[in-house]
Amino acid sequence: MKSQDYQEIIELVPVGIIKNAIKSPSLAAGKDGLSQTERMDRWRTRELEIQQSVSELIIHPEWVELLDGIDSFSHILVLYWPHLLDPQQRNLKKVHPMGRRDVPLQGIFATCSPARPNPVLVSAVPLKARNGNVVEVTGLEAVDGSPIIDLKPYSRHYLQVSNLKPADWMDKLHNEMKL
Amino acid sequence: MKSQDYQEIIELVPVGIIKNAIKSPSLAAGKDGLSQTERMDRWRTRELEIQQSVSELIIHPEWVELLDGIDSFSHILVLYWPHLLDPQQRNLKKVHPMGRRDVPLQGIFATCSPARPNPVLVSAVPLKARNGNVVEVTGLEAVDGSPIIDLKPYSRHYLQVSNLKPADWMDKLHNEMKL
Repeated sequence: MKSQDYQEIIELVPVGIIKNAIKSPSLAAGKDGLSQTERMDRWRTRELEIQQSVSELIIHPEWVELLDGIDSFSHILVLYWPHLLDPQQRNLKKVHPMGRRDVPLQGIFATCSPARPNPVLVSAVPLKARNGNVVEVTGLEAVDGSPIIDLKPYSRHYLQVSNLKPADWMDKLHNEMKL
Repeated sequence: MKSQDYQEIIELVPVGIIKNAIKSPSLAAGKDGLSQTERMDRWRTRELEIQQSVSELIIHPEWVELLDGIDSFSHILVLYWPHLLDPQQRNLKKVHPMGRRDVPLQGIFATCSPARPNPVLVSAVPLKARNGNVVEVTGLEAVDGSPIIDLKPYSRHYLQVSNLKPADWMDKLHNEMKL
């Protein structure tokens, strides 16, 4: 593509699919009528479910060879697509993080909301095993059936940072959820 | 999209463009006739150039509001597209990492090669400033003109791992490059 022509579409082809026990997406921001306490209880419950869950990353046959050597790494980066997201939500500009109205509205690029212009979700997870076209990982926050966009080894060089300082609101929410 | 229909195309729209002083992509694997020493010298030189470089992430006007709050984070994750990559290279199955023929061929998903079925490249970098539609970061390994797919805050929860053990070949190459 020409870099000047910024409206040109980029096309991705799913290379596999995620299979796990997580059947519903995280709570849609502010659309559930929950109190703050109920909301945070549900987040915590969901978080425990995710941390304990095993996901199978089923790679489509034509890409199996690309997995060779992946099990030499303790951790991988999974890029996937939130297929249950309403495409309309790709136009959202700001959200209350985790639906918390006590946290001021933040621009989408300042949040981890799945509702974003290009909802390519990224998660670093421990790799347990590779068997043929199946890679087993734990703790992946993806809904069953999510298409896989890419798998990469976890590289210190590209992913580790020093002197990390997140926004105060994120620290606060993570502490409340004991993440 | 229906998750069963795995060939369905996912469409992304570039939300911005990267401006910096890095004009050429990293060496194409094995296509340059360089000796191993020359190759590693060039990698090191390039790496120093990258670490010192400042990149401007220019967000297209319709998405500017999405940046509000991003400068509360010390680090962000940049997802971008290697626009100079020959689309044919999306069909590669295995490579010698960094073009090093002394390292056995690895499946693309076991490497950080930009040549991959869906070349969405991911890099965590320090955020220096946000001014309007421009976010300034340092150390981003992206060629000038690369389209931006997404920006996210660096979240410990999704990106930090413990007890990381990379493949021996990656440790070896990183040590040689003093990364």
